[in-house]
Amino acid sequence: MTQKSDHIPRATIQRLAVYVQVLENLLREGTEVISSEPLAKACNVNASQIRKDLAYFGEFGVRGVGYYVKSLIESITSALGVDREWRTVLIGVGNLGRALLNHKEFRLRGFNIVGAFDCDPFKIGEEISGLEVVCTKRLKEKIGENGAEIGIITTPPERAQRAANHLVEAGIKGILNFAPARITVPGDINVEYVDIFHHLYALSFNITFGKTD
Amino acid sequence: MTQKSDHIPRATIQRLAVYVQVLENLLREGTEVISSEPLAKACNVNASQIRKDLAYFGEFGVRGVGYYVKSLIESITSALGVDREWRTVLIGVGNLGRALLNHKEFRLRGFNIVGAFDCDPFKIGEEISGLEVVCTKRLKEKIGENGAEIGIITTPPERAQRAANHLVEAGIKGILNFAPARITVPGDINVEYVDIFHHLYALSFNITFGKTD
Repeated sequence: MTQKSDHIPRATIQRLAVYVQVLENLLREGTEVISSEPLAKACNVNASQIRKDLAYFGEFGVRGVGYYVKSLIESITSALGVDREWRTVLIGVGNLGRALLNHKEFRLRGFNIVGAFDCDPFKIGEEISGLEVVCTKRLKEKIGENGAEIGIITTPPERAQRAANHLVEAGIKGILNFAPARITVPGDINVEYVDIFHHLYALSFNITFGKTD
Repeated sequence: MTQKSDHIPRATIQRLAVYVQVLENLLREGTEVISSEPLAKACNVNASQIRKDLAYFGEFGVRGVGYYVKSLIESITSALGVDREWRTVLIGVGNLGRALLNHKEFRLRGFNIVGAFDCDPFKIGEEISGLEVVCTKRLKEKIGENGAEIGIITTPPERAQRAANHLVEAGIKGILNFAPARITVPGDINVEYVDIFHHLYALSFNITFGKTD
């Protein structure tokens, strides 16, 4: 597979993740081949958008046939760099942290949570989903052992920055932050925010004032 | 407060949610007034962006003083329609559903979860965070009683569409979907997707190929 461009726009990556999700559900239902129109419909985009997004890294559709579901998933995940295991660690073993540690989809999709950390002495030593909760102070040592590259923050907002500092110091390359707080990290560290309330605010606004774009 | 425009762009709503998050953390730390430069820095945007976003619904900064934190939060939440209680129901009492039912931030921010639903007979009747889990077939009846307007879906992907159908039939106006599946609903229903894997894919891509936009 040739990577035609390493400047895939953010909006395209977001849609590619949707395509993978839809394609995986199709595969689960036994669909092996799909043409662009029904695929587009299932993804809530138009067919030309799909063709344009896929053109960033090559050509996939077979004229008169459509897309081979399994091979298209492989091509997209390879283009996104998710065709391998990504080791992750999680800081903050509260309700949300526990739910994510027990979430089967992470491992299924290659994002393997290999460490759980918390600074609460009552949580340290507890076993969740086969992982022992370890003191956050030992993060660097543990990452040296398990080679994790992505850190997941599920602490309360006031502890998010400290968790981020620990992750940066331990040599992590990317952070997925669920805590409702902004964090500051060096420019070479990638940060993604899962902001549930942004979505609830958008719902609230759209219900109150009518749909936005 | 005057609503200057009811066409606030989606990206602005996303940033407004960030401003509220940052302002609430400032308020918690005891900050009463902040000028636009440090506020912009804490939000990872530039000061002119903040001024532009706030201009959609009026003027707030006091020249030479800055923004009054508490009043700015009130203005933004009022502009987004989140200055009141939003009653929500949740379908799918798995790990993530339980975590959200126990998540204090929902109630704190006015998104009160007033019903928990599942079709698993082993879960029906169980009490979580003060709510009794009810059979999903009784959704319409229960929403008639509690007046919920937003539905949260935390089912497995293959049950998401059925949950959405129940919510639409029960008269819900907006859906927050955590299930990794697309759902189809009538055009007047607002849907927001919380797609954790889109963020993980973006991290994976950025770590592998260097930062995108």
